[in-house]
Amino acid sequence: MSKEITARSQDYSQWYNDLVIKGGLADYSAVRGCMVIKPYGYALWERMQSVLDGKFKETGHQNAYFPLFIPKSFLSKEAAHVEGFAKECAVVTHYRLKNDPNGGGVIVDPEAKLEEELIVRPTSETIIWNTYKTWIQSYRDLPLLINQWANVVRWEMRTRLFLRTAEFLWQEGHTAHATEQEAVAEARLMLDVYADFVENYMALPVVKGTKSPSERFAGAVDTYCIEGLMQDGKALQAGTSHFLGQNFAKAFEVQFLSKENKLDYVWATSWGVSTRMIGALVMAHSDDDGLVMPPRIAPLQVVVVPIYKGDDQKKALDESILPLVKALKDAGISVKYDDSDNARPGWKFAEYELKGVPVRIALGARDLENGVAEVARRDTKVKVSLPLEGLPARIASLLEEIQQNLYNRALTFREEHITRVDDFDTFQKVLDEKGGFVSAHWDGTAETEEKIKELTKATIRCIPLDNPQEEGRCILTGKPSHERVLFARAY
Amino acid sequence: MSKEITARSQDYSQWYNDLVIKGGLADYSAVRGCMVIKPYGYALWERMQSVLDGKFKETGHQNAYFPLFIPKSFLSKEAAHVEGFAKECAVVTHYRLKNDPNGGGVIVDPEAKLEEELIVRPTSETIIWNTYKTWIQSYRDLPLLINQWANVVRWEMRTRLFLRTAEFLWQEGHTAHATEQEAVAEARLMLDVYADFVENYMALPVVKGTKSPSERFAGAVDTYCIEGLMQDGKALQAGTSHFLGQNFAKAFEVQFLSKENKLDYVWATSWGVSTRMIGALVMAHSDDDGLVMPPRIAPLQVVVVPIYKGDDQKKALDESILPLVKALKDAGISVKYDDSDNARPGWKFAEYELKGVPVRIALGARDLENGVAEVARRDTKVKVSLPLEGLPARIASLLEEIQQNLYNRALTFREEHITRVDDFDTFQKVLDEKGGFVSAHWDGTAETEEKIKELTKATIRCIPLDNPQEEGRCILTGKPSHERVLFARAY
Ligand SMILES: [Zn+2]
Ligand SMILES: [Zn+2]
Repeated sequence: MSKEITARSQDYSQWYNDLVIKGGLADYSAVRGCMVIKPYGYALWERMQSVLDGKFKETGHQNAYFPLFIPKSFLSKEAAHVEGFAKECAVVTHYRLKNDPNGGGVIVDPEAKLEEELIVRPTSETIIWNTYKTWIQSYRDLPLLINQWANVVRWEMRTRLFLRTAEFLWQEGHTAHATEQEAVAEARLMLDVYADFVENYMALPVVKGTKSPSERFAGAVDTYCIEGLMQDGKALQAGTSHFLGQNFAKAFEVQFLSKENKLDYVWATSWGVSTRMIGALVMAHSDDDGLVMPPRIAPLQVVVVPIYKGDDQKKALDESILPLVKALKDAGISVKYDDSDNARPGWKFAEYELKGVPVRIALGARDLENGVAEVARRDTKVKVSLPLEGLPARIASLLEEIQQNLYNRALTFREEHITRVDDFDTFQKVLDEKGGFVSAHWDGTAETEEKIKELTKATIRCIPLDNPQEEGRCILTGKPSHERVLFARAY
Repeated sequence: MSKEITARSQDYSQWYNDLVIKGGLADYSAVRGCMVIKPYGYALWERMQSVLDGKFKETGHQNAYFPLFIPKSFLSKEAAHVEGFAKECAVVTHYRLKNDPNGGGVIVDPEAKLEEELIVRPTSETIIWNTYKTWIQSYRDLPLLINQWANVVRWEMRTRLFLRTAEFLWQEGHTAHATEQEAVAEARLMLDVYADFVENYMALPVVKGTKSPSERFAGAVDTYCIEGLMQDGKALQAGTSHFLGQNFAKAFEVQFLSKENKLDYVWATSWGVSTRMIGALVMAHSDDDGLVMPPRIAPLQVVVVPIYKGDDQKKALDESILPLVKALKDAGISVKYDDSDNARPGWKFAEYELKGVPVRIALGARDLENGVAEVARRDTKVKVSLPLEGLPARIASLLEEIQQNLYNRALTFREEHITRVDDFDTFQKVLDEKGGFVSAHWDGTAETEEKIKELTKATIRCIPLDNPQEEGRCILTGKPSHERVLFARAY
């Protein structure tokens, strides 16, 4: 086979890249740090968008669209925000090119310099809150529940396809509320929406929690997150939801007249997930033969491959396969009948395995005589012969079984990789030898957090929600602590 | 009412702006030339996207996503393309901000200058063909049928909401083919897809044609377009489809091995429609009371407003209205039951009229006694009392009737505004006094075209497809001509 995949055990990072590129999800581009999302990868993103967008709308949100560019001065209006986002960003300084008078192609026209530079949005709080100022006057205008699907740019120095790219696609929700309580509830609700999506569609169990102060979103009062675990034992943050307090309302002067006729600043949240989730999906379930797509999010759920010699056999197969394909479609299953004659069945099998299609049905002349088909599931690679009679219903339940199996497998792995640790030597050893989450006491200071990161490359992934309170001592400083937090090395 | 709309007769341009802003479609932003697309406007765009995306997929296209940025040197690779697009564009020159050492907030870090400037894509032919180079080797890789939904930026000096903005949303199809014939057929097919969408969903009749050489897309061999007519007699180009020949394949060295084992350059098309269509929709159908949405594209098709005093009347109304709303939903009709008690019925009527909701159903205690509802259609503003019995089916056919009526009205207007003219004085007079398309002879030269534009502000909108051949003389120069072309002043 021409599309060799590096084994996980040999080079995990190369394995990931092989899957992404050879699996047809994405490609490098000519622009440093920017990727091309290929049709199969984009189809996966469309599936994610479609499910999430439905959930956003069910919870009362509407979509809108705000400018790509942010005036430089806007970034400075919220003190913490500028620290977090002004550092690495794409800056538009000119608005025209012209022919080089010296004949060297086109050059930037020095006369077309912008009075104020524009930043390509790294996130849209500032431009959106500057707009909300004109949309919000009274409590009647609240809550304002808006989401945006957009591209954003953060000038990352070291990039990896889907996981960290200069440009990526995401959604960003930005809501405005009359009370603190309501805004906190919204931030929590959207965290639940994300967790529900990632667990039930992506089959990836997550820990819900809050970030430590130093890992908070720049400008947030509280950052909630969901953290998943990859097969190499590293954690991956799959989504965040921020309670922003009145920070942005104050920075952009957004006040409203309350029911009691009092002027007050508006309370805010923002929340987002991105194409990074595709990276998480790849690393959570795939194997050395290729991608493994959970059925509920798979762009293609079932492929049917005929095995035949000559037109007569093909015709006979079609007579059974075409009604089967129709029945599967009628049952709401996405299915492709790959009867193209430019590749042999074995090549097709490998290709669909590489692409992670959950179920493959193969049918030859002998199968037809016996009234059966060969059904292969991608997750376990088990093949069974099943009667054609009643096959669509069997496939539908098999898809659900695969979904559940992928989730259970990932959950078992995650459960086995949360290690309670009470001293620093073991902490380091677990990180080096076993990986996964380490549940440990921490004295609550940013200094200790930073020191642990320097020594071990592990960060506090989150303080789990409803975390049991327990007296203990910080693994690094021995100072008293009241609860364990989850550390891990992370993407 | 607080939301006054300027009358068309008084100030057409202000009428348009009032509709867009007060109708909740879009708003100006803090960034010059960039708009905020508000939830109602974005819902309209989502409807357009959903229908078009379905048509693209039915015709074999897949979506993908390419980088926002284009290296400056790429623009220069296709000679005509750079002339058309390098002029007014957003140029990224730096990738970092830093704190001003003099305490003036953040400034551009002079040390973070890009080696090669990046252009925010004005259109993506160059970055895409640079990618296709690695995707296409053999005839087996063709045709390559890709579409992208994206934002693009063209630095326009004079902007108008939806019609001409620096940033806008669009889709751009980019296809690669083995033969010239196939590529031309693709460009024509997509023109038909656009025309079908604009006529059957937006209820706006269009003329299909080709552009004159000087109005062609920069880099195209042929540009096909659809042209609609607005109520003020100005034309609007609603979509274009380009046959690009081998221009981009040659510029980016994209060759393929044919079935006959010969190396040849690939043939290309590109095609796009944008949020500009929303501007066309507004100007084609709306009136002095607000927007008028064609039912097939309306974000909301039916609104139900209860008229009552006290809880008892409300409860009685609910008993009839809730099943009605459910029946409408079950029939696939989008419907909102606006029983909010923060506004009077009259205010609601005006609001939904402003938003152009095709059908309004009002129901009071008296109606209930008589087993009827008041049904008002937005297009004609005719109100009738209809029996509740069988109402959902009546509403469904009414929506189709409204759709058809809007199309017919626009078609009649368009037919009345195509004027055959044979001398220059009349040409100018028709443009000034009547407006619309002027069908006239032209000598085929760019000079004459330019001269006519200078004298009259009218441009050649298109040379209609299957244009009758007819001998005549150019209205400006008197030189011989073989067919009439359509002139108009245009958006
Ligand atoms: Zn304690
Ligand atoms: Zn002739």
